[in-house]
Amino acid sequence: MDFQLTPEQDDLRQRTRRFIADEVMSFETDPRCTPHGPTEDLRQELIARARSAGLLTPHASRELGGLGLSHVDKAIVFEEAGYSPLGPVALNIHAPDEGNIHLMELVATPAQKARWLKPLVGGHTRSCFCMTEPAPGAGSDPSMLQTTARRDGSDYVIDGTKIHITGAVGSAFAIVMARMEDGSATMFLTDMERPGITIERQLDALDSCFTGGHALVRFDGVRIPEGDRLGEIGLGLRHAQLRLAPARLTHCMRWLGAARRAHDTAVAYAREREAFGQSLASHEGVSFMLADNELDLHTARLVIWHCAWLLDQGDQAGHASSMAKVLCSEAEWRVVDRSVQILGGRGVTDLSIVSRIFSDMRAFRIYDGPSEVHRWRIGRQIARGPRPAEVAR
Amino acid sequence: MDFQLTPEQDDLRQRTRRFIADEVMSFETDPRCTPHGPTEDLRQELIARARSAGLLTPHASRELGGLGLSHVDKAIVFEEAGYSPLGPVALNIHAPDEGNIHLMELVATPAQKARWLKPLVGGHTRSCFCMTEPAPGAGSDPSMLQTTARRDGSDYVIDGTKIHITGAVGSAFAIVMARMEDGSATMFLTDMERPGITIERQLDALDSCFTGGHALVRFDGVRIPEGDRLGEIGLGLRHAQLRLAPARLTHCMRWLGAARRAHDTAVAYAREREAFGQSLASHEGVSFMLADNELDLHTARLVIWHCAWLLDQGDQAGHASSMAKVLCSEAEWRVVDRSVQILGGRGVTDLSIVSRIFSDMRAFRIYDGPSEVHRWRIGRQIARGPRPAEVAR
Amino acid sequence: MDFQLTPEQDDLRQRTRRFIADEVMSFETDPRCTPHGPTEDLRQELIARARSAGLLTPHASRELGGLGLSHVDKAIVFEEAGYSPLGPVALNIHAPDEGNIHLMELVATPAQKARWLKPLVGGHTRSCFCMTEPAPGAGSDPSMLQTTARRDGSDYVIDGTKIHITGAVGSAFAIVMARMEDGSATMFLTDMERPGITIERQLDALDSCFTGGHALVRFDGVRIPEGDRLGEIGLGLRHAQLRLAPARLTHCMRWLGAARRAHDTAVAYAREREAFGQSLASHEGVSFMLADNELDLHTARLVIWHCAWLLDQGDQAGHASSMAKVLCSEAEWRVVDRSVQILGGRGVTDLSIVSRIFSDMRAFRIYDGPSEVHRWRIGRQIARGPRPAEVAR
Amino acid sequence: MDFQLTPEQDDLRQRTRRFIADEVMSFETDPRCTPHGPTEDLRQELIARARSAGLLTPHASRELGGLGLSHVDKAIVFEEAGYSPLGPVALNIHAPDEGNIHLMELVATPAQKARWLKPLVGGHTRSCFCMTEPAPGAGSDPSMLQTTARRDGSDYVIDGTKIHITGAVGSAFAIVMARMEDGSATMFLTDMERPGITIERQLDALDSCFTGGHALVRFDGVRIPEGDRLGEIGLGLRHAQLRLAPARLTHCMRWLGAARRAHDTAVAYAREREAFGQSLASHEGVSFMLADNELDLHTARLVIWHCAWLLDQGDQAGHASSMAKVLCSEAEWRVVDRSVQILGGRGVTDLSIVSRIFSDMRAFRIYDGPSEVHRWRIGRQIARGPRPAEVAR
Repeated sequence: MDFQLTPEQDDLRQRTRRFIADEVMSFETDPRCTPHGPTEDLRQELIARARSAGLLTPHASRELGGLGLSHVDKAIVFEEAGYSPLGPVALNIHAPDEGNIHLMELVATPAQKARWLKPLVGGHTRSCFCMTEPAPGAGSDPSMLQTTARRDGSDYVIDGTKIHITGAVGSAFAIVMARMEDGSATMFLTDMERPGITIERQLDALDSCFTGGHALVRFDGVRIPEGDRLGEIGLGLRHAQLRLAPARLTHCMRWLGAARRAHDTAVAYAREREAFGQSLASHEGVSFMLADNELDLHTARLVIWHCAWLLDQGDQAGHASSMAKVLCSEAEWRVVDRSVQILGGRGVTDLSIVSRIFSDMRAFRIYDGPSEVHRWRIGRQIARGPRPAEVAR
Repeated sequence: MDFQLTPEQDDLRQRTRRFIADEVMSFETDPRCTPHGPTEDLRQELIARARSAGLLTPHASRELGGLGLSHVDKAIVFEEAGYSPLGPVALNIHAPDEGNIHLMELVATPAQKARWLKPLVGGHTRSCFCMTEPAPGAGSDPSMLQTTARRDGSDYVIDGTKIHITGAVGSAFAIVMARMEDGSATMFLTDMERPGITIERQLDALDSCFTGGHALVRFDGVRIPEGDRLGEIGLGLRHAQLRLAPARLTHCMRWLGAARRAHDTAVAYAREREAFGQSLASHEGVSFMLADNELDLHTARLVIWHCAWLLDQGDQAGHASSMAKVLCSEAEWRVVDRSVQILGGRGVTDLSIVSRIFSDMRAFRIYDGPSEVHRWRIGRQIARGPRPAEVAR
Repeated sequence: MDFQLTPEQDDLRQRTRRFIADEVMSFETDPRCTPHGPTEDLRQELIARARSAGLLTPHASRELGGLGLSHVDKAIVFEEAGYSPLGPVALNIHAPDEGNIHLMELVATPAQKARWLKPLVGGHTRSCFCMTEPAPGAGSDPSMLQTTARRDGSDYVIDGTKIHITGAVGSAFAIVMARMEDGSATMFLTDMERPGITIERQLDALDSCFTGGHALVRFDGVRIPEGDRLGEIGLGLRHAQLRLAPARLTHCMRWLGAARRAHDTAVAYAREREAFGQSLASHEGVSFMLADNELDLHTARLVIWHCAWLLDQGDQAGHASSMAKVLCSEAEWRVVDRSVQILGGRGVTDLSIVSRIFSDMRAFRIYDGPSEVHRWRIGRQIARGPRPAEVAR
Repeated sequence: MDFQLTPEQDDLRQRTRRFIADEVMSFETDPRCTPHGPTEDLRQELIARARSAGLLTPHASRELGGLGLSHVDKAIVFEEAGYSPLGPVALNIHAPDEGNIHLMELVATPAQKARWLKPLVGGHTRSCFCMTEPAPGAGSDPSMLQTTARRDGSDYVIDGTKIHITGAVGSAFAIVMARMEDGSATMFLTDMERPGITIERQLDALDSCFTGGHALVRFDGVRIPEGDRLGEIGLGLRHAQLRLAPARLTHCMRWLGAARRAHDTAVAYAREREAFGQSLASHEGVSFMLADNELDLHTARLVIWHCAWLLDQGDQAGHASSMAKVLCSEAEWRVVDRSVQILGGRGVTDLSIVSRIFSDMRAFRIYDGPSEVHRWRIGRQIARGPRPAEVAR
């Protein structure tokens, strides 16, 4: 058993940390941070800096121009990047692109990679992942998929509506999940400017950290040639699993950084602000909250590291990533909520970054499976047993 | 012991409920709802409707044009008003005006009432309460007051900075707390347009329900004539107590309505949305959350009713209102947070009102004393004892 | 609305409080307090004192020799009695006798009352309620009843096994729930010494406050004459409902007193014990726990009072008593658990009464419906709606 | 980073698991399990089995006859041993002997080791650790030490009272902490039969897993020769730190096994017991609790492994072991509490082992520093900062 970082990991950590502090954080008050995320212009400026620093798209393979990070490496780097709401944008490791890159490396054809993946890894384009649908379609339960893909000659014709599509506005292309005539699901790639694709409207969301925000997207008879199918016919949901567990975990990593930022901000304030004759931090009522933050950060990090290590061993880590998702999304949220509380008026206004982290993070307990769906799966597995003898091996 | 509403209370409840449903809720998507609250224009439109419905400023005395509601009456009416983020604005019972009206009825001179209180109760003007200061000034600990009032002839000269001043932008007048040369505190009334008063900037806050938002206000040598002093010299903090316990409780009431709205929205969605073969509400994982909502709403209401009844008996209710503040701000928050969770994507976007209630309500655990300050007071009282033999008599 | 006690209620409260303090608490260290509850001998000594004090079986009707307390009256008196683990025994208001008396007053025949109820109310005998069965019989789900009642001439013949039968050892008689040949359920009265009744074994339980402890009881061909049937044929479960809601609530009342005792014990210790330069109670880490205790006691009391008042209005209070059961069993438990924590070593040993209250109270979250069954019912009712418009009317 | 067990660790785990299942668990219902722990007779029988299995006192060094386990090795083995309340007794790794052995290996003289440590490691004797005192002595705050050691010739004379002394009854010897005339603290070794040592009384405690239970011990002018001083003069508290962090962590390990046992018992029951038409485990209300158990067990294990690894690196791990103590004592407790709840009547009676684990475990949140003391220390360190940049390195 070993919890030591390698010198390379430690170096990556320090470099990323400095990069975020020196090159990214000053942009947090840039007016190009809009309610629907940083503008493309701001994004390009940040991307350019990461490129210079050798930190762009670090999770992509070396062939594609990334650093070929392992899952454990990602745990280190993504936490550091998450320290600023703009960090994941700068490193090109934000959702949904990060997961799309991971998925496409695994299942895309060479032609698809050349056309779509290469510029995405280079930070020149963005993409979106069109899975979730409004009621009565696929939400927490992917089997309720309503969007259809009908064969027509050598093309597929896609019809349906997708919602909460992060980054749709401004994306170059989309991955779309659709139901085949036999009921199975398949994924497709499509440029966003294809006829029949309409961005119905951008949603006003609590978060403002995703470039392009979230949108309602309609597909009306969108024709997709056979060559743009992503992965095997009928294996759409299974392929999505390849994306899901790691993507779930990278959320845990990035938001861990954000939670740490909130905590550090609260610590600095609590040390300095006085009330009732002593610093806030000298009041046990506050210092116990800071202690609980430390406990939550510590467990979140360990749970992430363990799951990342499992993935690095080739384990699918479905169970472990479900556990990580629940534990981290709840622990990291508690950290941010306590930090808001300690900061008082600063915590609920733009006088600190923490109010933004608070708004940005709430949806994390919902997307990639709300806590309830993960508890349900973990519980069902226990109910059906044999229970995994040791959860952490 | 009796938990029955009087027929008059029941009638008020029904009337308010219908008013909110029929005349207010349709404005929730009005573009005049801005990040800094409803515009004055929208406010006037809502006020006019409440005036017609005979529900305007109902907590003010009958002499002043209100309905002379008791504290228990307020518990009934304010909960109903809070069901819409615009309800308290419409009824002119929002913070800080609601508390300012209460305070001025108790301590203002007839001339002050004629000049400032009368148009406020009529819904024609707004006011603000300038107490909180940036570090190292008065925050949770009012004794740290830094703003000074210096005697100069028959005037006072005020210097200082106030922060988180709700409704400052657009207010006709302010109540300002300042420290006298002897260290005691006194309150003053002043028109906002007096020379030396500058609204330094409006803060971007999580909430968007308060007309005028929140601001940083500077007082530079503001001259205030003797006649505009509010209450006794040196009794500023004691007078503020008159405002505090009831104002604290009316927050509990209004937010109870908001929490009920969130819950009702989640219930409706959970009954209709399907996942994994049945409605969300048929999943115990969801229905237990709805049950917990019901439990939290129930206790919050009882705690409010009890404290309101105590106030109606002439009790200062410092202890009971501290308990109500902690219990309600936390229970009502849990209701809203669970409702967001059940609503999933709808809960974190403008697809439901609940994301707005979520953002609006977070600061409630902080203002009028954060939970920690109330726990500290309650705990200190227990530590010093004699413990109140029975908390609920 | 009115939260004031009547002078009569206040007097009853004071008298009961003094009685417990002066006449009962000194017996808490009596060696006749055994792991299976106080001995019959000790019980009789306590009962005699309550009789002299005019406080015996106060919930029974005046005809039967009680004080004819309303449900609200009971809320006052039972809380005081619960302040000592021996208080409910002394006043003859402990489970299951308290509920059995309530039920029999409503459905027993005059002859049954004369034979069984009269001496029970007089404190001369004890009774038990035989409902719960080992798997696969009736536990949380009463419809799984396995014990059978077969008609044989003018008698019924009962066969089955009952478990967790509180007070069985030493009881004069039992109320037995059994399934009829048509599947419906009926209740029967029987002396415990009838042939075919065997106390298989006494269970070692966490609690030690119930006289007779808990037992596994077997019924092998027990013959019961028609006249000993309790209530209507086939209405056993419906009759049990009459017992259930009030019995559930009286548990909340008694344990509220116990929780208050734990809290008072912790307060006294925290004021006096020093650590790190000041009293424990001066540490916010402790005083916040005391504050939370006060909050929990306060809400538990209000929830009980409200539900008792509803019952006094003739409401069945199924929903309200489910809410009260969950809220009180959990809030009162938190109080005791925090008190143990504050007391440290004293809290987990016989150096304080609190370790006993801790062991005694754990099962309260389970019996009369575990929290999960109540949440399930409340949630199901919300799911099926129309939601009760206002929970607290 | 590596979470893989070595083959040796895996083998030890399997062997210990089988040993507990095959040779220890059947003794759990042995009547020699008394309220004050297993009798010496039962203990010797268990020890003999562990000796045969080659698993006795495995944490002791190989020179002394143990297996020389590292801290991570202990994490593996002790969790398995804790699966039965009798497991730590059988392996001779229970408190306080486990910690005393660890301490004495570090600071005892060769003569002291020969006389006291050797038979202790061999399982032939038991020992106790006399530190805690009744008020106003040393409790959570060791600086309040009242027991005195006065120099008299070449001897020390000890006077004082110690409380909550685990295992005192039946111990061969004690380690005693006493205050020197200069205010510093020193540790002493003494046979329990020395004149002046009186076991005032055995306490009735919630737990029944420690051989000898807990006692109040008086030291009246006990003469201790210079050669029986343990460690350096005046370094008593510092030496105790050597014992504390690892001893704290071994509690986390053993109780993790106990929590897993409770969980497994609840899982088995929930799979089989039916209610409302399906197994308990098929109710989300129950399966979510099982999922939460899994989450808590998982984090507890990771936190233990991390801290054990730190200790193996030579780190004092004061901060990490404080975190582990809080996290594990609370997470493991939640597991047991939920398991009780799921088991219903079985969980609060001797129908399952879980009621015993429940009673045994409550004090774990108190001894070796209650959660509040650890939160206070963690919080104070944050307040004083520089905050440990990364808690998990």
